[in-house]
Amino acid sequence: MQFHIATIHPQFVESYFKLGVFRSALQSQTVTCKAIDLRDFAVDKHASVDDTPYGGGDGMVMRPEPLAAAVQSIATKPRVIMTSPGAPAWAQPVAQSFVGCSQPLLFVCGRFAGVDQRFIDRYVDHEYSIGDMVISGGELPVLMMIDSILRLLPGVLGDDASAHYDSFAGGWEGGLEHPLYTKPREFEGIPVPDVLLSGDHKAIKKWRADESKRKTRLWRPDLLNSPKK
Amino acid sequence: MQFHIATIHPQFVESYFKLGVFRSALQSQTVTCKAIDLRDFAVDKHASVDDTPYGGGDGMVMRPEPLAAAVQSIATKPRVIMTSPGAPAWAQPVAQSFVGCSQPLLFVCGRFAGVDQRFIDRYVDHEYSIGDMVISGGELPVLMMIDSILRLLPGVLGDDASAHYDSFAGGWEGGLEHPLYTKPREFEGIPVPDVLLSGDHKAIKKWRADESKRKTRLWRPDLLNSPKK
Repeated sequence: MQFHIATIHPQFVESYFKLGVFRSALQSQTVTCKAIDLRDFAVDKHASVDDTPYGGGDGMVMRPEPLAAAVQSIATKPRVIMTSPGAPAWAQPVAQSFVGCSQPLLFVCGRFAGVDQRFIDRYVDHEYSIGDMVISGGELPVLMMIDSILRLLPGVLGDDASAHYDSFAGGWEGGLEHPLYTKPREFEGIPVPDVLLSGDHKAIKKWRADESKRKTRLWRPDLLNSPKK
Repeated sequence: MQFHIATIHPQFVESYFKLGVFRSALQSQTVTCKAIDLRDFAVDKHASVDDTPYGGGDGMVMRPEPLAAAVQSIATKPRVIMTSPGAPAWAQPVAQSFVGCSQPLLFVCGRFAGVDQRFIDRYVDHEYSIGDMVISGGELPVLMMIDSILRLLPGVLGDDASAHYDSFAGGWEGGLEHPLYTKPREFEGIPVPDVLLSGDHKAIKKWRADESKRKTRLWRPDLLNSPKK
């Protein structure tokens, strides 16, 4: 799979490529991630990619031409994805829907007050939201979206079973993951639950399934009726 | 306000402090942001902060002691915030609720398969989610959460009115922001809407309010009945 990220902060974006799941995915050779510096397509020698909004108002707006040029710089026509407050929420099934996509994916990171609507109308194929909040750039949500896709690719996590036993995944019937415990055996007077030390694999499996259901019922009862995978 | 971020990737987190709203906020001198390197509190000379899960299974789990030590390293007892899939969603009113908090805020970035439950039970005051998805670390959502708080602090955005005319804010009665346009006047044959070039401020204000309502009705009708601020 080919991921491209159009941004005015390519160095920041690339620094995340070196961590965790990005690093594993890029080492696997089946994935490429590239940052596209929007200032390479600036409209003047001052590297401008933004200008004042027509009609007045605060903040600057990203001009459409550098964004369009970034799309056109990719040899194969990409699917273009952007974040937008109020758009459908990015979620695990959305991440899954992009797994194995043969077309390059281009994620556009908005900055400033926003992006010229004509670029969105002409070039953007999908808009997603990461919650009812406003933040100052698309870089963080875009990296999150790609991260959530990469973990689902075969061979990227250490063990292929890992993603199956994440929250929202088939291992917990779409519910939340059970609590986790590691060393030390006692922390500030609290022991690890006995069952996890018992070596009784059947009992451990049942405890985990029960805890997953309990947590899901408490926090996210809506997930109990989600389709079984 | 004091923000602390406990992470195994302090350099990555700090590189974001140099961009956009973080840079402005830090220059304002009323905000401090610090990354705490969890490996400084590792349990051994190999800088380990994680171990295998009790009861078996894939992945590593973050040990509680380095996390607890990070909390205790802050002179004034902080409010501790962590991301967790399935927890209540981080959203604009949540960001608003932290504005002006006099207690230091410590955001803990989970990594690997997750965090030992005993640390969460003993030390974490708030858990929030950034959507029904699984990603490989808390760094991106934590930076997003802090970003969404910083933009609401007086004097951080270029103009105090900016945040008021964001999506979800009072300027649009809690709805979505209208489309934005900037230069050029014509892009790929599409002109900027006439009204924005008219200089008629009353007409522009009405167009923007109408477009905000139209977009909100289309995408997020649930926001139309949200309380007016």
